[in-house]
Amino acid sequence: MNDKHLAAEKAVEYIIDGMTIGLGTGSTVNFFLKKLGELIKEGLKITGVSSSNTTTSLAISYNIPLIPVDEVKNIDLTVDGADEVDGNFNGIKGGGGALLYEKIISTISKKNIWIVDSSKVVKQLGKFPIPVEIVPFGYKHTLQKIEAAGLNPVLRKKEGKIFYSDSSNMIADLNLEKIGNPEDLFKKIKLINGVIENGLFINVPNLVLVGSEGKVKVLENISRT
Amino acid sequence: MNDKHLAAEKAVEYIIDGMTIGLGTGSTVNFFLKKLGELIKEGLKITGVSSSNTTTSLAISYNIPLIPVDEVKNIDLTVDGADEVDGNFNGIKGGGGALLYEKIISTISKKNIWIVDSSKVVKQLGKFPIPVEIVPFGYKHTLQKIEAAGLNPVLRKKEGKIFYSDSSNMIADLNLEKIGNPEDLFKKIKLINGVIENGLFINVPNLVLVGSEGKVKVLENISRT
Repeated sequence: MNDKHLAAEKAVEYIIDGMTIGLGTGSTVNFFLKKLGELIKEGLKITGVSSSNTTTSLAISYNIPLIPVDEVKNIDLTVDGADEVDGNFNGIKGGGGALLYEKIISTISKKNIWIVDSSKVVKQLGKFPIPVEIVPFGYKHTLQKIEAAGLNPVLRKKEGKIFYSDSSNMIADLNLEKIGNPEDLFKKIKLINGVIENGLFINVPNLVLVGSEGKVKVLENISRT
Repeated sequence: MNDKHLAAEKAVEYIIDGMTIGLGTGSTVNFFLKKLGELIKEGLKITGVSSSNTTTSLAISYNIPLIPVDEVKNIDLTVDGADEVDGNFNGIKGGGGALLYEKIISTISKKNIWIVDSSKVVKQLGKFPIPVEIVPFGYKHTLQKIEAAGLNPVLRKKEGKIFYSDSSNMIADLNLEKIGNPEDLFKKIKLINGVIENGLFINVPNLVLVGSEGKVKVLENISRT
C-alpha cells in the first residue's frame, strides 16, 4: 500500500455512522472512496456530497449514496486531497481542476481532513502552480489582467484543447515558485475581474493525514480544533 | 423623445469612424443601438462588442457588425446604462442580469460612457438592489454566507423560476437601502466564496450623459480624463 493509500485509509477512522461526508477529488481521494465503499458494503450508513463529476462517477460505482450539495444544511466531515500544504494549514488545491466545488464543499463542512503523501507537505507554498477558475467570456483579457498583476498565468489545456472545469469555466495556472503571504495573495487573485475562485485554501483542514514511509502522521490544526 | 432616449442619442456624438464600441445592455442602451444602426446605414464604420445575448440579437437586427470580446485587443468606447450612479462615478448595474459581461467589457474599454435619465443619479447608492452573480453549485450556501455578512440577499426569479444569467449563473439581489463605502462593499462581496462578480462598479464611467427634462447634462469624471 503506497503512502497516499495509507493516508486515505486512515481517514475512514474519523467517520461515524450517520454522517454526511464531503467527498473531495483526486488520486488520493480515490483510495478513500474505494475504502468507503467497502465499509458501506459492511453496513456503514453515510451520505456523500460530491465535489466533481469524476468523484460522482466513482462514488456511484462504489455504491456510496449521494446527496446534492444544495440539499444538505451542512457537511459533518469532508475528506479531500491537496497539491501542497504548509505548516499553517494553508494549501494549494485544484491540480485536477475541481477547486471551485472543492472549496464550496470545504466552507460548509464542520470538519475538513486532508489526505496527502509527504511530498505534498512544504515549508513554503508556490512550487505547485495555483489554479484559478476564470469566466470564459473575455478570458484572454482576464489572463492579461492576471499577467499585469505579476502572477504568471498559463491557460490550462488538455490534449491541445482548452480545459473546462465541471462548471464549464476555464483554468489559469499561476507559476509563482514562492508565495509570501498566501492569504493576501488569495484576496489579490479573487478580486481580479473575470476570476471566480482560486486554489489557495487558507487555514482549511482541521487535520492533515500524511502518509510517509509506510506510516501515517497526523498533523492537527490547533487553530481550528 | 424621452430622457433615456435623449441621453442615448447624445452618446453617438462621441463615436469616431473605425472605433470598436462596447455595447451595454438595457432599455436605454436599446435606444443607442437603434441610433447606431441608423448611422451605420448612412455609412458609419464601427465594430461592436456585445455584453449580452439580448444586445447581440438587437445589434444583429440593426445590422451592427459584431466581434467576440476575445478577438479584440481592447475597446475604444463602451456605452452602457446604469441603475444608479453617484457623484463619485460609482454605480450599480445589472438590473437586467448582465453585470458580469458588462463589467468585463468596461474593464477593457479606453473610455466608458453611461447613459441614464435623471432618476438614476443619486447622492448615495443602495436603494437599487445590488445584483451579485453566484455559482449555481452550492447556491443556497452562498446565499447563507451573504446573509451572514449582513447583506440581505434575495435569489432572483423570473416567472417563479430561478433566473439564469447569460453565463448560466444565478443572481442574488442585495437589498441594502444605503451603502457607506461602495469600494469596500464591492471587495467584501467579491471575496465571498461562491460569488463571481457583483454589480458595484467603482469609478468606471469617464462621462455620464443624463437625460433630464428634455435636455442632456454631461457629467465629466475628472479623475478619469
